[in-house]
Amino acid sequence: MTAMATDDGVRTDRGALAVALAEARAGRAEGGIPIGAALVVDGEVLAVGRNRRVQDASPILHGETDCLANAGRLPASVYARATMVTTLSPCDMCTGAILLYGIPRVVIGENRTFLGGEELLRSRGVEVVVLDDPACVELMRDFVAAEPALWNEDIGED
Amino acid sequence: MTAMATDDGVRTDRGALAVALAEARAGRAEGGIPIGAALVVDGEVLAVGRNRRVQDASPILHGETDCLANAGRLPASVYARATMVTTLSPCDMCTGAILLYGIPRVVIGENRTFLGGEELLRSRGVEVVVLDDPACVELMRDFVAAEPALWNEDIGED
Repeated sequence: MTAMATDDGVRTDRGALAVALAEARAGRAEGGIPIGAALVVDGEVLAVGRNRRVQDASPILHGETDCLANAGRLPASVYARATMVTTLSPCDMCTGAILLYGIPRVVIGENRTFLGGEELLRSRGVEVVVLDDPACVELMRDFVAAEPALWNEDIGED
Repeated sequence: MTAMATDDGVRTDRGALAVALAEARAGRAEGGIPIGAALVVDGEVLAVGRNRRVQDASPILHGETDCLANAGRLPASVYARATMVTTLSPCDMCTGAILLYGIPRVVIGENRTFLGGEELLRSRGVEVVVLDDPACVELMRDFVAAEPALWNEDIGED
């Protein structure tokens, strides 16, 4: 089973996840780390992003932060209606970015290959939905097996 | 009293803060938000950065994250010897970035105008030093008074 966009488009969490997963796959095709994200506001995708550590030689462009950067400067009232959709459980940095901007809802493709700041998000009142999507798990499992050093670099480990 | 580099240079926390404060002032001169940072490793400044919300229309380039971006891709062993020096108490996003990369020490110019994730940093074993520097306080007080809407945008408030 893979995440598929449906006729509901991004109005369903699985439809929105398909958009983020397409970003993750595009990143992998570029030689990058396959994690993607989408910022959904009022049932529309406001921006997408993907991890660009390899592509841009950047340690701060994770899927979620690249997505926020691509969304540009927004008023707090827009973040307050947003859902951050990400293929992988958000790391401490991306957790913090979600908290900074008061994004009230996070949809996560999977947290089997990496568990980030879900507990902190929930403790601060953020709704966290984990879809446990097999396609997201498979993409990361294959990547981590193929590129363990690159993956460790991305999460600050040796 | 202003933070001044001394003959000790960045080998003292106040000398390193002077480097970060110069970044903050350069940002203000560009019309930006006056928060600066420096990443110090083994007594040398590895990179500097400043808030670039205005300059680059970016919501993810705070002083600390811009500094990490400017430092480029680093192995965990370098972050493990680093001190993040910042003119202002780090927000949730920058707190998370410090935690992600396992930076063990943070030097903060001031936390009077904004108190960020110092408690979370300490709870995760990070050494947090607050210098309570009057020049840092004055720079932010003047900026917040002059540009309250811009400041609120930077911290995700209306």
